[in-house]
Formats: sequence, structure tokens, C-alpha cells
Amino acid sequence: MPEAIPVSSLRINIERLCRRIAQLAEIGAIEGDGVCRLALTEEDGAARNLVCEWMRELGLRVSVDRIGNVVGIRDGLEGDAPVTTGSHIDTVATGGRYDGNLGVLAGLEIVASLNDADVATRRPLAVGFFTNEEGARFAPDMMGSGVQQGALNLDEMLATKSIDGKVLGEELQRIGYAGTAEADGFRAHCFIELHIEQGPVLEQESISIGAVTGVQGISWTEYRIDGTSNHAGTTPMHLRHDAGYVAAAIAVEARRIAIDMGGSQVATVGVTELVPNLVNVIARQASMTLDLRNMNETLLQNAEQRMAQFVEEIAAREGVQISQRKLVRFEPVAFDDAMVALIEKTAIALGFSCKRMPSGAGHDAQMFAPNCPTAMIFVPSKNGISHNVAEYTAPAELEAGANILLQVMLNKAI
Amino acid sequence: MPEAIPVSSLRINIERLCRRIAQLAEIGAIEGDGVCRLALTEEDGAARNLVCEWMRELGLRVSVDRIGNVVGIRDGLEGDAPVTTGSHIDTVATGGRYDGNLGVLAGLEIVASLNDADVATRRPLAVGFFTNEEGARFAPDMMGSGVQQGALNLDEMLATKSIDGKVLGEELQRIGYAGTAEADGFRAHCFIELHIEQGPVLEQESISIGAVTGVQGISWTEYRIDGTSNHAGTTPMHLRHDAGYVAAAIAVEARRIAIDMGGSQVATVGVTELVPNLVNVIARQASMTLDLRNMNETLLQNAEQRMAQFVEEIAAREGVQISQRKLVRFEPVAFDDAMVALIEKTAIALGFSCKRMPSGAGHDAQMFAPNCPTAMIFVPSKNGISHNVAEYTAPAELEAGANILLQVMLNKAI
Repeated sequence: MPEAIPVSSLRINIERLCRRIAQLAEIGAIEGDGVCRLALTEEDGAARNLVCEWMRELGLRVSVDRIGNVVGIRDGLEGDAPVTTGSHIDTVATGGRYDGNLGVLAGLEIVASLNDADVATRRPLAVGFFTNEEGARFAPDMMGSGVQQGALNLDEMLATKSIDGKVLGEELQRIGYAGTAEADGFRAHCFIELHIEQGPVLEQESISIGAVTGVQGISWTEYRIDGTSNHAGTTPMHLRHDAGYVAAAIAVEARRIAIDMGGSQVATVGVTELVPNLVNVIARQASMTLDLRNMNETLLQNAEQRMAQFVEEIAAREGVQISQRKLVRFEPVAFDDAMVALIEKTAIALGFSCKRMPSGAGHDAQMFAPNCPTAMIFVPSKNGISHNVAEYTAPAELEAGANILLQVMLNKAI
Repeated sequence: MPEAIPVSSLRINIERLCRRIAQLAEIGAIEGDGVCRLALTEEDGAARNLVCEWMRELGLRVSVDRIGNVVGIRDGLEGDAPVTTGSHIDTVATGGRYDGNLGVLAGLEIVASLNDADVATRRPLAVGFFTNEEGARFAPDMMGSGVQQGALNLDEMLATKSIDGKVLGEELQRIGYAGTAEADGFRAHCFIELHIEQGPVLEQESISIGAVTGVQGISWTEYRIDGTSNHAGTTPMHLRHDAGYVAAAIAVEARRIAIDMGGSQVATVGVTELVPNLVNVIARQASMTLDLRNMNETLLQNAEQRMAQFVEEIAAREGVQISQRKLVRFEPVAFDDAMVALIEKTAIALGFSCKRMPSGAGHDAQMFAPNCPTAMIFVPSKNGISHNVAEYTAPAELEAGANILLQVMLNKAI
């Protein structure tokens, strides 16, 4: 290998990374420096085109699979499975510019830095972005990586309907990302994902790098409550079958259970919709979602059971019908000990403080974990804010994370 | 007066009344025999045109005032203030065919019956329908009668914005009902309104007629809760400012206070909307309405104060901003004793069971009560259901109510 400097001294170019982050954030930009780029919309299509163009400029071999995942490969001296990084470029409706995008663009920046230094690696490198990680337009989330790594069924996912009534397979066609590569044909030598923390822990403890030990288990349930519409003035309280009240009571109980359980248990009712949603009409129908997460599978099941019991009780008490649908269920995932240790060792070698921590959010990395050594690198989120236009991580923090990603990938690839 | 039969023997024609009810219900018809005819929509305009056509066919002098109220007058032998009946023809989005419409069409049926029998009255008779009684598209409700009877300001009401962002005065123009008559120029000799009960009491006690003694006080408040959007997985429970949770807690507290107070106190949260309303994003904003009603002004104020205290406490506890706007506030209204007694006496004379009862809903009649002797006649609602496509009152029950209205109006007009 022709090397001018030792690879351990290689660093990424933070200006170039920040430029790409800013340029990608122009697609689907919303007020307050945020981004709205729901999966498989026009905006997502335009963002995909831009990232693919960058991949090709960097000399990567780009392939698109049947679920729309895009992988760019930089060949190695040997034809082994690639040392892989990546994340997603779809966002929630009120998203920021770092969630997902950082992991993809840091991957490109690593390739660019290796190209600049004319460094060849023994194993190939790969940078991917995976379809519909957020789950904001189609459920479940982490769909593309889930199909690629064998956890989700391709045909079922292609038939999924969006919140705006569109079929996923047709939306892939429409934006030109119904690829031909086998959806589950890609296997990595190992997978490392750089991501913002999306929580307040690193910032509050003034730590630069999180070496992520695993991902919380996630349980999403959708409830539909059918009661009886009636006049808000003339219907005595004891004769009501108020779907809106039942939805509120479920949301309050979810909070109560999460507080009561403590630890890593969280509970969120993010969606509530009443029908007919009028001031003087008792709601006949309510739709709502419940998001439960815990690092421990047994405790997560316990939270689910307590909610199920409450839902059954309140349906009987209020005389309403409650139907439920499990939108997402992932068990907690543990990352690879050796990979976590390598991230930690690399961070310290580069002079950064580092903390082992779990991830409160789901990530594409968890789909790789059953198939190859996997871990994640977290960088701080200002005020812990994410899924919000105010999402922010300072350039120096991004640079630290990307340099650790570079060195970890080199360690595995050379 | 040329009379073939004594006026006390005059009866309405129930087939003709039912025909008009069915014909009017075709305008804005929705599945399940219901009606969606929100105030000042195309459908409301078409329904107004049909009722005005019927009024003119019956020989009534029709005038439209500046807030869109329509009054049809049948001249009397003397030029006194008219003995007046009427109600409204707007509905909620999921309305039935009787609420409001019955009172207007029964008024027309009375005129038709008097015309058929060639009966002249000493005092004029008037049948009116009043703009935006429901308050489902514009707030406040009982708007037309409120302006006509001096309780609401014309210019403020013309500037009101609908839930779909339209200005009331412009909507009146658009559908051709921005009339020229002075909005507060009409005074009645007395006012009697026939209406469905919209509650379960008459049916459960097998009573034909309610002689309505007054109307509950009504308090409508709109809350806007501003919290902080954040990731549903990574934000510990104690660091959340969850607008959706606060909305749910307010709804649950409203129920708790109503049950605790008992008596005639009712509380309804009919509207709840979250922003961004996504499964894995803590809501940054929630909008909701609270409808409180009580027959007793002191108790209603007590309910309002308890809610205000809770709202203040939870805003501080959860670290959210809550702004509130009073949409509607009516004190309880007592109807005229002599008018209530006349309804009761007439019902019994015609062979019907009758019960004195309060109204749980607001009605146009309450706007007349300060200015002239006023009362209402209730007929039963099947299963107490109203503001719902399943709203139903049997023809024989409608006939009883309309005949009592006829005889009470004759008693006051002859």
C-alpha cells in the first residue's frame, strides 16, 4: 500500500462534512433549520439522488436493492465482506439535519479522506442508507435494514400503506428507487453506525463520545376506541361512552406506569385523534398510539401487560370497544462487546472522553447485530433535542465522532 | 273570524310535517340517515333556500337580517309584536335530522294548518330560523339569536373565523344570506321553541312532553398547550414537557371533577389535536376544548375554578405553557313560569303526560328569555341520542309536540 502518513494519523475533513450536511438539509428544508423528508416522498427521492451522485463521484460502486436500500462499495485488496457503516436520510415531519444523515455523510467523508490519502484497505468498505428508518410515514420503522438483514419480509413491506394512503412498493417505483439487487443479499463483515445521541446524557455529563452497548426494546401499539357520539350537554356522566375520555385515560395511565416502573422505562402517546372532534359532541371514536421502551425485555413485557390490563378494564368500565394493533415490536438488542471496546479504546486514544451507554432510540444498527459484529458511536445532542428542528451538534463534536468512526473502520479493514 | 271548527280542535298534519323533515334532510345527507350541514356552507345555503321557498308558498313575509337570521311573518288582525316560534337548520358534522329542523318545520306546519282552516289571529305569528346555533363551524353557538336579541355584538360576530379559516360575514355574502334587516330589530310578543330533548330522560320515564323550565349554564374553554417536541425513546420521563400528556391529564381531571360534583354538572373534552401527532415524537403542542355545564351558576363557577386551578398546577409541574380562550359563556337561564305552566296545561288537556325539566343543551330560546315570555317544548329522543346520525323521534311524538306548540301559540295569539 502506498502510504505517505501512518493510517493512525488520518483525520477526516470537517469542513467538507459540514458542507455536505448543510447541502443535504436544503432538500425538504423547513423553518428553523429543520428538515421534513418523510420516506419515499419527492424530497426523499431528491435527497437520494444527491447522495448517490456523491457516492459515484467518490468512486463507489452503487447498488439499489428491491426495498430501496442504497449501498456504495469501495473495493478492498481482498474480496471479503465489507466493513460497513451507514444510517438513513429519511426524517420525521419535524426533523433536524443530523439524525441519520450524519451517519451516512460521515461514511462518505471517510471514503473521501481515504481517497485523498490514497489509502487502500484489505477488506472492502461500504456506506449504506436504508429505507424508512423513521417509520413516520410507513410502519414499521428500520424497515430497509430490517429487510436487508432478514428480520422483515420483503413482500409484506412492499405492500405497506403510508399514513397518506400510498403503497410502499409503488412509492419506490415513483421516485425511482425500486432497485433490482436482492433485498437480503448484502452481508457485512462488521457494522458501525455514527449517530447523534438524541438524548441529554452526554451533554449533561460533558462527555464527547458514547460507545453504545445496545438498543432499547420497542413496543408500538395503535388503539382504536369506539364509543357513542352524543350531546355534550344532555348526556349524564354515568351514561357516556366517551372515546375521547378513554383515550385520555390510557395516556395518563401510560405515564403513571412508566413513572412507577422507573429505570429505563419510557412511555409516549404521540398520536391522538378524535371523531368527530367537535367541542359539544362526545367523541364516538378515538385513535391513538402508545410507544413503550425498555432496555430489559422482561420489564418491557411487564409494561405491555400492565397497559393491556388497564385497556381491558377501562373498555368494560366505560362501555366502549377497543381494538389494538401492534405496529412495531423489537426486543432489546445487545451490541458486540469487542466492537464496543474498540470504540471506547479508539476514543480514548484520540483524546476524547467516552461513556458506555444504551440507546433509547431504535437504529439500523440493531438489524445488523444478529448477523455481524455491530456497535454504534454517539455524539452529543444539544439540550437532548431530536425529532425537532432545534436538533444540533457542534462541528467539533461531529468531527470527533467521524474520526473515531474512521479509525475503527480502518482497524477492521486493514 | 270565519271559523268552521273551534280553534281548540285544530290539529297539525303529521304526514306533511314528516315529508318536510325528510325533504330538508336530503340536503347535506350523510350515511345512516344523518345530516352534515355546518353553518353557512353550501348545504346550509341550499337548505335556507328551500325553507324560504316554503315560507313564501305559505304566504309569509320573509325578511333576512344582517347576521342571516330569517323570519317569516303571518300578519295578525292587529299590528302587535308576533307570537314567535322557530329554531335552527344548521347541524353539527355528524348531525341528525330533528335537532333544530323540527322547531322550524313545526312552525311552518302550524302556519299551514291555520291557512288550511282559514284561521286568522289577533296577533301576528312568526317562524324564524337563526344563524349558527350549533357553534360547530363558528364560535360562539346560538349566534344569530344572540345578536338578534341583543346579547352578542353584530360586528364582532361578522368577523368571526370558522374552523376552516373563513370569515362569517364573507360566508353570509357567499351563500346569499347577508340580509339588510337590522340584526337586532326583531322583538317577539313571546317565544316558544319545540325541540327534541337530546337526552334520555323522557324516554326512560315514558313521558311524552317536557315543559322546559330553563337552560343549563354553559362554559366553553379552548386550551392551547405548548411543550417541547423530543424523541420518544431517548427522553427520560422526568425531562419531558409533553403537551399531549398534559391535554390527556386535563381531560381526565375534567371527568373527575364532574363525577365528584354530581348533580347536573357535566364536562366534555370533544376536541383534542396534537402537533406533530407522530407515534415516536413527544407532542410539542396540543389544542383542546372543554365544555362545562350546570343548571346552577354558582356550581358552574366552582367547576370552572377547579379546572383553572388544575390547569395552573399541571402547567407548572410539567413545564409547559397553557394559554386559554373562553369560547362561550352563558349563565343558566330560567324560562317564564306562566309560559311553562301554559305548556304543561295544554299538554295535559290534549291527553299527554308531561314533565317539567331543565334543558341540558343551549337553545335559541334562551336568547329570547330576557326580552319576552319564553319557554320550550321537548319531545323524546330515542336512546337519548343526538348530534349523531342515529337521532330519532317517532312521528306520533313529533305530532304531540307540534299540536301542543299549535295550541300554545293560538292561546297567545287569539
